[in-house]
Amino acid sequence: MTPTSHRHLIPTETFTATYRLAGTRTEAEDKAAALCVEQTIEFPADLVWVEEISRHIVARVGEVREAGERSFDIDIQFSADVAGTELPQLLNVLFGNASLLPGVRLQRFEPGPQLLSHYRGPRFGVDGVRRLVRARHRPLLCTVLKPMGLSAEELADLSYRFALGGVDLIKDDHGLTDQRFSPFRERVRRCAEAVERGNRETGGTCRYAPHVTGPAHELHDRARLAKLSGAGALLLAPGLAGFDAMRRIADDDDIDLPILNHPAFLGSFIVRPDHGISHFALFGQLARLAGADATIFPNFGGRFSFSQDECRETADGCRQPMGNLRPIFPVPAGGMKRSRLVEMVEFYGNDVMLLIGGDLHRHPEGLTAACAELRKALE
Amino acid sequence: MTPTSHRHLIPTETFTATYRLAGTRTEAEDKAAALCVEQTIEFPADLVWVEEISRHIVARVGEVREAGERSFDIDIQFSADVAGTELPQLLNVLFGNASLLPGVRLQRFEPGPQLLSHYRGPRFGVDGVRRLVRARHRPLLCTVLKPMGLSAEELADLSYRFALGGVDLIKDDHGLTDQRFSPFRERVRRCAEAVERGNRETGGTCRYAPHVTGPAHELHDRARLAKLSGAGALLLAPGLAGFDAMRRIADDDDIDLPILNHPAFLGSFIVRPDHGISHFALFGQLARLAGADATIFPNFGGRFSFSQDECRETADGCRQPMGNLRPIFPVPAGGMKRSRLVEMVEFYGNDVMLLIGGDLHRHPEGLTAACAELRKALE
Repeated sequence: MTPTSHRHLIPTETFTATYRLAGTRTEAEDKAAALCVEQTIEFPADLVWVEEISRHIVARVGEVREAGERSFDIDIQFSADVAGTELPQLLNVLFGNASLLPGVRLQRFEPGPQLLSHYRGPRFGVDGVRRLVRARHRPLLCTVLKPMGLSAEELADLSYRFALGGVDLIKDDHGLTDQRFSPFRERVRRCAEAVERGNRETGGTCRYAPHVTGPAHELHDRARLAKLSGAGALLLAPGLAGFDAMRRIADDDDIDLPILNHPAFLGSFIVRPDHGISHFALFGQLARLAGADATIFPNFGGRFSFSQDECRETADGCRQPMGNLRPIFPVPAGGMKRSRLVEMVEFYGNDVMLLIGGDLHRHPEGLTAACAELRKALE
Repeated sequence: MTPTSHRHLIPTETFTATYRLAGTRTEAEDKAAALCVEQTIEFPADLVWVEEISRHIVARVGEVREAGERSFDIDIQFSADVAGTELPQLLNVLFGNASLLPGVRLQRFEPGPQLLSHYRGPRFGVDGVRRLVRARHRPLLCTVLKPMGLSAEELADLSYRFALGGVDLIKDDHGLTDQRFSPFRERVRRCAEAVERGNRETGGTCRYAPHVTGPAHELHDRARLAKLSGAGALLLAPGLAGFDAMRRIADDDDIDLPILNHPAFLGSFIVRPDHGISHFALFGQLARLAGADATIFPNFGGRFSFSQDECRETADGCRQPMGNLRPIFPVPAGGMKRSRLVEMVEFYGNDVMLLIGGDLHRHPEGLTAACAELRKALE
């Protein structure tokens, strides 16, 4: 073999990822040094025979900051070339094999312009979604079609009543896919029609967001079919379908619909504060990179046990500057009660989409009245 | 709206999933009851107005068994109709929102014939891969192309030397995708050609497994291109691409290649014994359902901190009967040393594929000699 020059391995850009590492300072620093290899060459450092690989492909430890008792935030610098131009590989670099290591949590990452140039990000973001539903300042209201087991016709009837009440978005329950009790094609057609009928009566701008997560060979076509059938947004669970399936839909000019990110199958990244991916990075940064316009997550005080800090982190991840990527709506959910409306808006501010499902069914005057009451309160 | 009959909600089949739930017996039973709702209708049980939904769509708690101190294995029975015909929805039912709950671990599931009829599973499995590499009884040997940063030409040179040494499979490092230092198309062409050249010289059956995980719009085409370029197997990371992307490739008769499952980005499911998905279900059952023929996982005593029990569980998940789905190869990996060969074969038995990467480069007489020595030991 002829000798090869390796000068092309000198990166044109690097980016930083911050990991929270458990242990004493020495242990945390050792973990960081191991991550530099594990997340790149995954090869015994002493055996690398190409100097440029050791110098430029292997990541480097940067700043070390104490984050708590036996806990350190350590910056690691990666060559942007290692992450390449593809989202799955960026996920791989950020947390691929690292996911297998206890006491390692990805806190955040700071992609530079070259890396970000490969990502269009949210097509609508906060401002775009606000334009679509003609709501300049107020918090948005979202609700859900459930329980699973209803027919497409029954779900359409719910949709109509929700739309009459003036909610901004009606999403499928994420358990609805293409089951025989409510086939995808029929459900989307009927529910989109019902929402449109409601809008005609109210002059409203309610949008229906069908759940399009499906088999790999059909998923993208479901999103296109949803568009053609009159859907006004899409619901997708990247934990089930892959983050890049969302990115592909977001990038499709023929679809051109806002996307709601659902956290199903992603929870194991966030249930422990000492492992996984932070709320900030998972529900905020990665959702935005994958093109979500709004990101659903379990609210504090609901069925799931997340803290106010974690929810604030999520909202920060939706909003903090990230190159050209638009800010998106945090969508607190998971057993939200109508009675908590004021508390939620005080906590999250106006740039929030409140997702209230089952509790609407408790309103003594029915669904439409429940929605209208909330909508009025938000205005 | 006309009243609808809901008799079609009576399931034609149910299946059982077993969860390990933390807490006292009462706490665990309460968690199980909550999961029955959370994983199906996700709706206040007292508000459901259709009796058939409460009776047939909501899952049911089955047997409760003590699993340790403050830990219970509880069976939950689901209607197969809820899981429908699609893998993402099956994942959703098994662990979608459950992933957001601490103290919940999916131990195993028992799909019935109706549910399994939607899955072809591993195309080759243990016997099929053995036929391809003409190895009837012995353990198989796999190695890896790394470190990242080498050019396609340099990786092809490594491939050639590995093939001469008689390894059964040569896989890309899972960090290799389509970076500019080693573009996918060129790498696959060169490495496949190098392995073929090696085989011609030795009369061997070595196979090259390129890493095909890539963008959603390209992934399937990469697998097809790999086939056309002479690849003999494929490496895919379902944590990055989605399990169903693997299923789609496995089901494609034009591709018709064995698939190696890589655990990147899946580790958060398994780093804690009290949360996530068991090794048995994640690396065994789900990998098989998605069509993997071999499943890579971190071996005990390597760079990752997994126990012998967890590794035994993984091997069990690869081998235990699962309807018509073929058994597959467990592929222990992660800092495997040549010196541990005998120990590994004693532990896993002959139906194992040993993955040894970096350590081959420590052999004083070079890569080909290192491979030949191991191959001889396995025979």
